[in-house]
Amino acid sequence: MFESAELGHRTTKEEFDALVPRLRADLLDAQFDLLQLKQFAVVVLINGVDGAGKGETVNLLNEWMDPRHIQAWAFDTPTPEEAERPFMWRFWRALPPHGKIGVLFNNWYTQPIRDRVDRVCKRAELDQRLDEIRRFEAMLAHEGVLLIKFWFHLSKDAQKKRLKELEKDERTRWRVTERDWRFYDLYERYREVAGHVLRTTSTGDAPWLIVDGSDPNYRALFVARTLLSALRHRLDAASQNWKPRLSAAPLAPRVDQRNLVDSLVRQDMGRKEYERELELLQGRLALLTREAAFRKHSLVLVFEGMDAAGKGGAIRRVAGALDIRQYRIIPIAAPTEEERVQPYLWRFWRHVPPRGKVVMFDRSWYGRVLVERVEGFCSEADWLRAYAEINDFEDQLTAAGAVVVKFWLAISKDEQLERFKEREAEPHKRFKITPEDWRNRDKWDDYTRAVCDMVDRTSTGTVPWTLVEADDKHFARIKVLRTICERLEAVLAQ
Amino acid sequence: MFESAELGHRTTKEEFDALVPRLRADLLDAQFDLLQLKQFAVVVLINGVDGAGKGETVNLLNEWMDPRHIQAWAFDTPTPEEAERPFMWRFWRALPPHGKIGVLFNNWYTQPIRDRVDRVCKRAELDQRLDEIRRFEAMLAHEGVLLIKFWFHLSKDAQKKRLKELEKDERTRWRVTERDWRFYDLYERYREVAGHVLRTTSTGDAPWLIVDGSDPNYRALFVARTLLSALRHRLDAASQNWKPRLSAAPLAPRVDQRNLVDSLVRQDMGRKEYERELELLQGRLALLTREAAFRKHSLVLVFEGMDAAGKGGAIRRVAGALDIRQYRIIPIAAPTEEERVQPYLWRFWRHVPPRGKVVMFDRSWYGRVLVERVEGFCSEADWLRAYAEINDFEDQLTAAGAVVVKFWLAISKDEQLERFKEREAEPHKRFKITPEDWRNRDKWDDYTRAVCDMVDRTSTGTVPWTLVEADDKHFARIKVLRTICERLEAVLAQ
Repeated sequence: MFESAELGHRTTKEEFDALVPRLRADLLDAQFDLLQLKQFAVVVLINGVDGAGKGETVNLLNEWMDPRHIQAWAFDTPTPEEAERPFMWRFWRALPPHGKIGVLFNNWYTQPIRDRVDRVCKRAELDQRLDEIRRFEAMLAHEGVLLIKFWFHLSKDAQKKRLKELEKDERTRWRVTERDWRFYDLYERYREVAGHVLRTTSTGDAPWLIVDGSDPNYRALFVARTLLSALRHRLDAASQNWKPRLSAAPLAPRVDQRNLVDSLVRQDMGRKEYERELELLQGRLALLTREAAFRKHSLVLVFEGMDAAGKGGAIRRVAGALDIRQYRIIPIAAPTEEERVQPYLWRFWRHVPPRGKVVMFDRSWYGRVLVERVEGFCSEADWLRAYAEINDFEDQLTAAGAVVVKFWLAISKDEQLERFKEREAEPHKRFKITPEDWRNRDKWDDYTRAVCDMVDRTSTGTVPWTLVEADDKHFARIKVLRTICERLEAVLAQ
Repeated sequence: MFESAELGHRTTKEEFDALVPRLRADLLDAQFDLLQLKQFAVVVLINGVDGAGKGETVNLLNEWMDPRHIQAWAFDTPTPEEAERPFMWRFWRALPPHGKIGVLFNNWYTQPIRDRVDRVCKRAELDQRLDEIRRFEAMLAHEGVLLIKFWFHLSKDAQKKRLKELEKDERTRWRVTERDWRFYDLYERYREVAGHVLRTTSTGDAPWLIVDGSDPNYRALFVARTLLSALRHRLDAASQNWKPRLSAAPLAPRVDQRNLVDSLVRQDMGRKEYERELELLQGRLALLTREAAFRKHSLVLVFEGMDAAGKGGAIRRVAGALDIRQYRIIPIAAPTEEERVQPYLWRFWRHVPPRGKVVMFDRSWYGRVLVERVEGFCSEADWLRAYAEINDFEDQLTAAGAVVVKFWLAISKDEQLERFKEREAEPHKRFKITPEDWRNRDKWDDYTRAVCDMVDRTSTGTVPWTLVEADDKHFARIKVLRTICERLEAVLAQ
């Protein structure tokens, strides 16, 4: 969930100053159009880690836009009037009318998260509350409300640094409370609960946007741009009479060039070390899959990566550790005729392994949010809802005892070119390279973007993504094998 | 939930024989078109009370249609192959491809309901499972599957009669099992759990259709007609290239003329009895609202009814029992300017009472599924989703301690005419009758239909509808007051 928000995004003062005047003008324009049109309202939810700049960012927005048409609400302990009524009453009162923007701090998410962090409520109760929230937000979306949900994030170190800074300065010391430090002490738990909440409430109608809160310039640009593009999308739809997507703010804007995949640093491994490690790890995996405890589990491996990233090679090294009767490799290409006449997850459900078995997917259900998204094989609404559907699918696998391990084999664009050329040169590898591979390469940036969104939206506590630095095949294969062994050991030890 | 299905619907053999040939031909046509078009699949869920004719009905359908393109599945204890995999695996395997119809007995609803009846799982766990089901079904709908969910219902007496009949006959004795009788003993609990499940999973995408299972002819026509109209709607949409509603089977077909409202029998009460009862009940209500325990609750009264049904008069008799500082009467007419620029429930949320207070709504949020539906003020998708949204709203009120009591004041069309004429004749009542009232009267049948759907879909265990025989005003007012007292007493006694 928080992967992309921990990359330390930065915007320099010069860049920021250069961008702001135009952005302000555009925001004011959009706000004016919203007011004139008076057809829908905008609700902005501001949540997240303390000290991540929630207040500062919204204050800045308020400064940039016309504050008469922005209503900010911060909810604290319910007033007596509020305490007398249903939980949602005070939020209903705060809903902005058509034409206006409502900014809600500490909204309907705050209490459920806090109660769960403090163990006041159980997981099942939390899920019930989240389900109510999901239905409430779906209703808002159907009623035409443009809902934009920001989660301000800081890594644990960044939060500590930030709280100390605030404390040091006399003018800001008052802002750091006992509760802030208490929550800091619970950082891991808070992160886990928040991750669960964000994942379950990131719907096609109203996905969360995670803001890297560590740099004031970056986070302000991120929020302002998201708001602007969401507004513009909806306004254009209204003025041109087409039906907008319900969620006008599906994904994070690109403010800087930093992203998850390109931030990976090449790692190498010599042949000798590789061979030694390979033998050790294959032996370890072989033993693990023969343990009695494994008969209560199964192993579902997902390999994704750009063309020529080395998926096949990695899969063969895993297979090398297993008994042929124990595993199956499922290469995923275009769906068959039989598969095309079923819901898209059907073709993967049919390969779900029984207990004690291993299935390796060479490409997978993630095609929905990668190739189908980039190539436009499905509608935007379809791939937007797919994130939640995929999470549900993997939750069901996990609940039935499956250990799901997902790899993105990341290669650089240069390395891919090398490999393509090599394949073309070698007769026995020639079949592996097609004109389509070259075409896909042209869309490298689109694919990279889709990969980052995928990892952010489907990497979860129980089923995380492992990004593998794959420019060096030796290193990649060893990392894959080691990850599988570690995940399996953790589960079998329970 | 089950109100309309307990009216004892009947179709005579003559009617049935007259209707069937045409219906069969139409069904075969539709099935053929479905197969030719091959653009979507149909999933029919068959659930409900034992002995309500589930099997017979589907067998008959199968006989009427082309059985080569209907696949029926009955799920029992999971096979070893199924037990090794996630709960949903076997249902995924049973999904029909485009062009075909899949009939699923004992599907994904059976186990959750059984587990809850047997108290194997808690309410919160049940709700989690229902939430997963809701997401699964939404996914199916988005993927183009036409999902039709039938619940076969029998009243407790009817079920007993039916099980005995089956037992008496040598040829059918084998069909009655121990489990059937055990479930019969748990009838009330089963009904309560089923009601909750049906209500929470009746979404705009896939609402439940409750089949009165007491008469074989009626239930067969009901199911066949629903299937036919759902198929036709979707096929027409596909062939004419317009976007169908996701749910093509929103509401029950009219097979006979019997309905909830017209089944009410006029009840009269003389003036003397009325005055005595009125005094007693007003006194009882006055005391109840002054009890200390009432300070933890509030009272939300909803009055709905055709024009001139006597809503105002009933409200005044309730108000007569209360302290003026304690209650508010909210007459609901067309929304104000301020209300029109908000989600439709907003105007009701603003009047939610604090604890210890009473609010009476003279017409209410049910306008969404009554006048807005009948007059086309909102889209079909909007009023279809409103049932669930209204249930959520009332659940939130109830959870916060409100006692919600809902009345439909039912008058006959003749009685309404009398009252209209009377109003026109009396100068001081003239303002009460407008041309619009006469226009609404023309749509009497549409309104009646909307009322029955409303009661079926929003009458719940905690917030039931009370249908009031209102041709006699005395009787109606007394029934209203008594119902309020009884509901309040039940809650305050807890």
